[in-house]
Amino acid sequence: MFMGKVIGSVWATQKEEGMDNLKLMVVQPIDFKDREAGQPVIAADRIGAGVGEKVIISRGSPARVLFSGKMVPIDAMIVGIVDSFEVGDDSGG
Amino acid sequence: MFMGKVIGSVWATQKEEGMDNLKLMVVQPIDFKDREAGQPVIAADRIGAGVGEKVIISRGSPARVLFSGKMVPIDAMIVGIVDSFEVGDDSGG
Amino acid sequence: MFMGKVIGSVWATQKEEGMDNLKLMVVQPIDFKDREAGQPVIAADRIGAGVGEKVIISRGSPARVLFSGKMVPIDAMIVGIVDSFEVGDDSGG
Amino acid sequence: MFMGKVIGSVWATQKEEGMDNLKLMVVQPIDFKDREAGQPVIAADRIGAGVGEKVIISRGSPARVLFSGKMVPIDAMIVGIVDSFEVGDDSGG
Amino acid sequence: MFMGKVIGSVWATQKEEGMDNLKLMVVQPIDFKDREAGQPVIAADRIGAGVGEKVIISRGSPARVLFSGKMVPIDAMIVGIVDSFEVGDDSGG
Repeated sequence: MFMGKVIGSVWATQKEEGMDNLKLMVVQPIDFKDREAGQPVIAADRIGAGVGEKVIISRGSPARVLFSGKMVPIDAMIVGIVDSFEVGDDSGG
Repeated sequence: MFMGKVIGSVWATQKEEGMDNLKLMVVQPIDFKDREAGQPVIAADRIGAGVGEKVIISRGSPARVLFSGKMVPIDAMIVGIVDSFEVGDDSGG
Repeated sequence: MFMGKVIGSVWATQKEEGMDNLKLMVVQPIDFKDREAGQPVIAADRIGAGVGEKVIISRGSPARVLFSGKMVPIDAMIVGIVDSFEVGDDSGG
Repeated sequence: MFMGKVIGSVWATQKEEGMDNLKLMVVQPIDFKDREAGQPVIAADRIGAGVGEKVIISRGSPARVLFSGKMVPIDAMIVGIVDSFEVGDDSGG
Repeated sequence: MFMGKVIGSVWATQKEEGMDNLKLMVVQPIDFKDREAGQPVIAADRIGAGVGEKVIISRGSPARVLFSGKMVPIDAMIVGIVDSFEVGDDSGG
C-alpha cells in the first residue's frame, strides 16, 4: 500500500458495468514528509474519506477481494484513513 | 485508476485469441492540471469514448472481471468517461 | 497494453515448467511518435511477430488467461501486430 | 520481491473490511548498498519485523495467497526478515 | 518478463508461511546492452541460476502459477537462464 492525501473527486455518468454507486476520489501519493510521491490516482472509497485526509491506498487486487462475487473493475481502493504514523529518520540504522 | 485523454485508436488484424471485436484506444495519462503523466497506454473501450474525451482507466485485473468466463488477454480498460472533477490545491491541508 | 517494436529474440534451455515451446521476443516499448518509452521487455509470442514489427503487449494476467489450465509462468504477451494507428496531437483538446 | 528497511508504523481506525488486526509497517525500499530505491511502501507484517530491520517485501498477490479464504485487501507484505545477503559488484561478469 | 543478471543471494530465517526452502537470488535488471535497467529485485530460483548468469525474470503471477495449491507469497521468479539473445539496433526501421 502507499499513503496519499485525498485532493478531490471525479464523476462519470457513462461507465462500465460495476462502476455504479462507487465514490471515486482523487488521491495524491505522498511520502511521510508530506512531499508528493508520484502522479495522482483515482481510488474507490467506501469508508468516507474526505478531502485533505491522509489515506492508505491498496492497488491491484483489492477490488476483487472486497467485491467478491460482483464485477467491479477497479484497481485502487482506499482501505484506511490514517490516524497517525511514526516514521524515523530513514538514513539512520 | 488514473485519468487520461483519448488521443487515438490502434488496429491489429493479426492478434491473439479473445482480442476480436475489441475497440482499442490510445490514452495519454494526464494529471488534473492537464499535464501529461507518463507514457500512452492502449486500453479497450466498450462505452464509446471518443478522441479528446477524458476517461478513467483501470489496469490489470479489470479484463478478467468484466469478461469473466471468456479469454480476453487485455490489461487496461476504459471504465468511465469523466463528466467533471473537483480537485483542490494539493499543496494545502 | 502498450505499443512496442520487436527488436530481437532470446533463448533459454534451462527453464521453469511451462516455459517450453514458447517463442520469447524482445520488445522495445515505444510511444506513438516512434520514441523509446522505457526498458525492453521479454514477451511470449504465438502470433508470429517479426523483428521490426510494431506490436501490442499485454502484461500481468494475459498468461493465465490464454493458457488457462496450464502452468505458464509468463507475465507479458504479444496480443496483436499493429496494422495502423491514428493518434492526434495530444497537446490539443 | 525487493529489500527494504522498516522505518516506522502507521495506524488507521477507520478502515475497510479485512484490515483489522493487521500491523502496518512503513518500509523504505533500499538497494544492496543501503541507498534508497524508490518511495516508501506500507506493508502488512505478521512476522514481527522491527524498525531498523531489513526485510523482504512481496507485492500484489501475497495477500490473497496468505489470507486465502478471507477478504484482506492488502497489496504488500513483509515475507522475510533479512539475516544476511551476499551481493557482488554488479558491474563485473 | 525482463532480463537480469544474478548478482547475489539473500537469506532470511524469520519468514512468512510458504517461504521455506526457497532459494532467493538478487537480480540486477539489465537491458540488452549490459546496462543496468532499474533497481535490483529478489527472485525465487528453482532452476539453479548462478551469480553472473543472465536470467529471465517473471513477476507477479508466476508464483501462484508454479506453486498452485500451495501458499507461496512470492512475486518474482527466475523462469529461464539465458543461453543467447539476438537484438538488433532498435533505432532502426
